[in-house]
Amino acid sequence: MKIDLNADAGESFGNWKLGRDEELFPLLSSVNVACGFHAGDPLTMGRTLELAQKTGLAVGAHPGFPDRVGFGRREMAATPEEVYADVLYQVGALSAFLKVRGLPLHHIKAHGALYNRATKDPPTARAIAQAALDFDPQVPLVVLPNTPLEQEAQRLGLRTVAEAFPERGYSRDGRLAPRGTPGAWIHDPAEAARRAVQMVVKGRVAAVEGGWVEVRAQTLCIHGDNPSAVEIARAIREALRAEGVSIETY
Amino acid sequence: MKIDLNADAGESFGNWKLGRDEELFPLLSSVNVACGFHAGDPLTMGRTLELAQKTGLAVGAHPGFPDRVGFGRREMAATPEEVYADVLYQVGALSAFLKVRGLPLHHIKAHGALYNRATKDPPTARAIAQAALDFDPQVPLVVLPNTPLEQEAQRLGLRTVAEAFPERGYSRDGRLAPRGTPGAWIHDPAEAARRAVQMVVKGRVAAVEGGWVEVRAQTLCIHGDNPSAVEIARAIREALRAEGVSIETY
Amino acid sequence: MKIDLNADAGESFGNWKLGRDEELFPLLSSVNVACGFHAGDPLTMGRTLELAQKTGLAVGAHPGFPDRVGFGRREMAATPEEVYADVLYQVGALSAFLKVRGLPLHHIKAHGALYNRATKDPPTARAIAQAALDFDPQVPLVVLPNTPLEQEAQRLGLRTVAEAFPERGYSRDGRLAPRGTPGAWIHDPAEAARRAVQMVVKGRVAAVEGGWVEVRAQTLCIHGDNPSAVEIARAIREALRAEGVSIETY
Amino acid sequence: MKIDLNADAGESFGNWKLGRDEELFPLLSSVNVACGFHAGDPLTMGRTLELAQKTGLAVGAHPGFPDRVGFGRREMAATPEEVYADVLYQVGALSAFLKVRGLPLHHIKAHGALYNRATKDPPTARAIAQAALDFDPQVPLVVLPNTPLEQEAQRLGLRTVAEAFPERGYSRDGRLAPRGTPGAWIHDPAEAARRAVQMVVKGRVAAVEGGWVEVRAQTLCIHGDNPSAVEIARAIREALRAEGVSIETY
Repeated sequence: MKIDLNADAGESFGNWKLGRDEELFPLLSSVNVACGFHAGDPLTMGRTLELAQKTGLAVGAHPGFPDRVGFGRREMAATPEEVYADVLYQVGALSAFLKVRGLPLHHIKAHGALYNRATKDPPTARAIAQAALDFDPQVPLVVLPNTPLEQEAQRLGLRTVAEAFPERGYSRDGRLAPRGTPGAWIHDPAEAARRAVQMVVKGRVAAVEGGWVEVRAQTLCIHGDNPSAVEIARAIREALRAEGVSIETY
Repeated sequence: MKIDLNADAGESFGNWKLGRDEELFPLLSSVNVACGFHAGDPLTMGRTLELAQKTGLAVGAHPGFPDRVGFGRREMAATPEEVYADVLYQVGALSAFLKVRGLPLHHIKAHGALYNRATKDPPTARAIAQAALDFDPQVPLVVLPNTPLEQEAQRLGLRTVAEAFPERGYSRDGRLAPRGTPGAWIHDPAEAARRAVQMVVKGRVAAVEGGWVEVRAQTLCIHGDNPSAVEIARAIREALRAEGVSIETY
Repeated sequence: MKIDLNADAGESFGNWKLGRDEELFPLLSSVNVACGFHAGDPLTMGRTLELAQKTGLAVGAHPGFPDRVGFGRREMAATPEEVYADVLYQVGALSAFLKVRGLPLHHIKAHGALYNRATKDPPTARAIAQAALDFDPQVPLVVLPNTPLEQEAQRLGLRTVAEAFPERGYSRDGRLAPRGTPGAWIHDPAEAARRAVQMVVKGRVAAVEGGWVEVRAQTLCIHGDNPSAVEIARAIREALRAEGVSIETY
Repeated sequence: MKIDLNADAGESFGNWKLGRDEELFPLLSSVNVACGFHAGDPLTMGRTLELAQKTGLAVGAHPGFPDRVGFGRREMAATPEEVYADVLYQVGALSAFLKVRGLPLHHIKAHGALYNRATKDPPTARAIAQAALDFDPQVPLVVLPNTPLEQEAQRLGLRTVAEAFPERGYSRDGRLAPRGTPGAWIHDPAEAARRAVQMVVKGRVAAVEGGWVEVRAQTLCIHGDNPSAVEIARAIREALRAEGVSIETY
C-alpha cells in the first residue's frame, strides 16, 4: 500500500517568508508550488525548486486567483476564459523553472478559492482542466473527488488524482465541513494521523455528525501554512508507516 | 537580400488597449509579445498569439521589469539573480500560450529599461542571456550590436540577432542618440523608410552629427506604441521591397 | 429644476489611456475619480484633478476592488473589514490630491463590482458607508435608490445621493436590467437623452417589459468609458436644458 | 536630554507577517508606518495604527517606491513628478487611517531606496519635500543630515528632523558605510546601545576607519525588520536612560 503526501510550497513573497519548506519537504512526496499570482515570485520559485530537487520531491504547479493581498482565498467572479488564461500563464511560468533543472511537471493543483470554486462550478472546473489538458495531456490534475472538478476533468479525458484532507472535517455527505463550523479543522497531530490512516487503509473517516464517510484518496494534503504543518506531517507519516503504507507519489 | 521587421505587441492590459496590432501585424515578419510584467496579461497574451498565428508571424518573448505603472521604462536596480528569474518566468509564461497553439518560441528580446540596462551593464546582459540559454539554447536573443548585451550573449554561446532602429537617431560612435536630444526620433515615415534602406542595403545610416555610421542589422524594430507605427511600417516595407529586399524573418 | 450629471474619470493607468476626460468634463457637473485600485495611478489622479479644477467640477472619490486587470468589475469575496479598509485607503489617497489643490471632497461613489455588491449585500453596503462616515460625516455617498446601499447608509446617518442611469434599461420592479439581457443598454444618444428627461422631469422611465417604472434621481450617471460618452452627455445636457433643467451639482 | 526612537512598522502584507510590532512598539517613541507601496496594505495599516494608538506612539507616514516584491529597496528611475505623486498618494492613504482614529500625522519619512536616492539626488529630495510641504507644512520630514534630502527640504522651508542609525557603521566623512562593506552593520545590541549613547550624549560615533565622526540626531532609527530589533531597541533604551536621556518624540 502507498499514498502520496502533498503540501503547498513556495508561498513566500519577496521579503516575506511563509511556511517551513526546509523542514517540511523531507516528510512529503510531492509539493504544489505557488506560481506568483496569489503567492510566490520568480526568485522564490527558483529557490523552491532547488530545494524540491535536492529533496527528491515531485513538483506540481499551484495556480491561484490574481489576488496577492488576499492570498488567493477570496472567490473572484473570473470568467472561464480568464481562468483558462490565468492557469495556463502560471503553469507555463513554473514550467520554465522546472525545465532549466531538468525536472518534469508532475501535476497541477488549483489553489484556495480557485480550487473551491472549481469544486462547485462546472465552467470554472472545465477552464482549469482544459488549460491543464492543452498544456500537457500527460500531467494529471489533483481534484476533490465527487465534485465538478473531478467530473469535468474526466469528461475532457484528463487524468485526475483524488485528494483527501486529514486535517479537515468531513460531513457524512462527503463534503468538507465549512471553515468556521465546529470540527472543520483538526489541530491535533495525533488525531490528524489517525484520520490519515482511516482514509488510506479503510477508505473512510469519522464524520463531523458522527458515523463514517467514505473517502477516496491517492494523495493526502497537509496545509503548509499551518504553523504545526511539520508536526502534523511527521505524525501522519509515522502513523502510515506503522500500518505498512509507504509514502510515495502516484 | 532579406531582413526581419519586428515590433513590440500585446501591450494592452486588462481593459486598456494599446497599439494597433491588427493593422500592424500584416506588415511585420516577427513580434515581441509582452509577458505580463510591464504590459500584457494572460488574456491579452492568448489573443495576441491568436492574431500572430493567423498572420503567420514569428513570435518572440518580450520580458521586462516588474513595473507596470512605469511600462517597464524605468531602470530598476534589480540584481542579476532577480533579472535571471524574472526573464525565465516571463519566457515560460509566454511559452505556455505558444505551446497550446503548436507555435515555437522564435526569439527573446528584453523590453525597455531592461534592454537598455543590458546594453550598458554586463551582469544584467549575462543574466538575460543565461536565462535564455538555460530555457532553450536554440532560441536567439535580439541585441543591440556592439554592446555588452551582444558580447555577453555570444560569450555564453547564445545565438544573437542584431537589431537596428530606423526611427531612432544614431551617433557617429554607433550609439542611439539619447531620448530627448535633437534627432533622437524620426517621425516622418518617408525618412524612416529611407534610413531602413540605408541600414539594410548599405549597412550604414546618416548620423545625428552629420556623416555616416555603420549599422549591422538582421532585424529592424518598429515602435508599436507609436501612434504612426502602421504608417512607418508600411513605408519601410514598401521602400525595402522597391530595393528588392524581402521582409522575412531570420 | 436642477440635476447633477456625473461620470467616472481618471481611468487611465500609467502608459494606458482610457476615456475622453478633456471632452467630457465640460459637459458634466461632477466626476468620480478612480483612486488607483481598479484604475488610475498617482500621476493620473493629480492630472485628473487639475483638469477637474480648471473645468470647475465637483470631485468625488471612486474606490473599487483591488483588481486592476479586471477593472474592478469582478465581484470579489472581500470581508466587510477589508472593504472598509480598502475604501478608507482610496478615499484618503484621493483626498491628498484634493487637499494640495484646496478642493473639497464632494462625494464618494463605489465602483463597478463593489457598487453592485453593495446594492445586494448589506454588510458590504455597511462597510462602505461606515468608511465614508468615519472619514467625513459631511460627505454624501452616491447610491442606487431602494437598495441595501441606500438603506444601510441612511441607517448609519450618512447623507445619500440617489443615482439613475439614462443609458441603462430598468425593469418594472425598479432594478437595472442585467447586463447581457435585451434592453440592458441604451446606445442611442437621443434615446438616452429622452430617458434622462423622463427621469428628471417625470420621475419615471420606460421599463424594458413595457410600461413605466418610477425613478428617483439627484444625479444622472454617464459611463465615461463608453466610446460615445461625449455624444451621450451632450445629448442629455441639451435635452435637459430644453426642458428648463439646469445641470448643477447637489 | 531627550531623543526620539523610531522604527519602521506595519510592514506585513496580506497573509505575510513581518516584524515584531507588538513587542517593539512599547520600546519606541515613534513609528514610520508603511503605506501599501513597498509593504503594508489597508487592513495592516488600520491594525498598525490601532496598536500605535494603544501604545501612545507618534505615527509618521513611510512612503516607498512602488516595488512590493523588492520591498522598496531597489532604486528606480522614477521622475520627480512621479515621486511627488507617489509620496502624496501614500501620505494621503495613511492619513485617512489616522483621521478616523483622531490621530495627527506626526512626520513623514521616505523608505529604503527612495530615502537613499533622496540623500544623493536633489530632484528626488525636492519632490519628496514638496509633497510633504503641500500636504501639510506643519509636518516635519525625517532626513539624513548633511545630504540633499535635508538641504532641499530646508530650502523649501520644511521643518526637518535629523536621523541617526546606531546599528549602521559611519565613515569619517559622515556617510553611512555602504551595505556589504566591513562594519556596515552592528549586530550586537550592547554595541548598538553604546553607539546610541555616543550619538546622543557626545554628538559623535566611532567611525569604521577608526577615529570619530560627528553625528547630529533628533531621532534614532531601529531597523524593525531585523530579527533582533526588539533586543537592540531594549538595549538602546536602557543605555540611554542610564545616561539620563529620556525617550520621547520631538
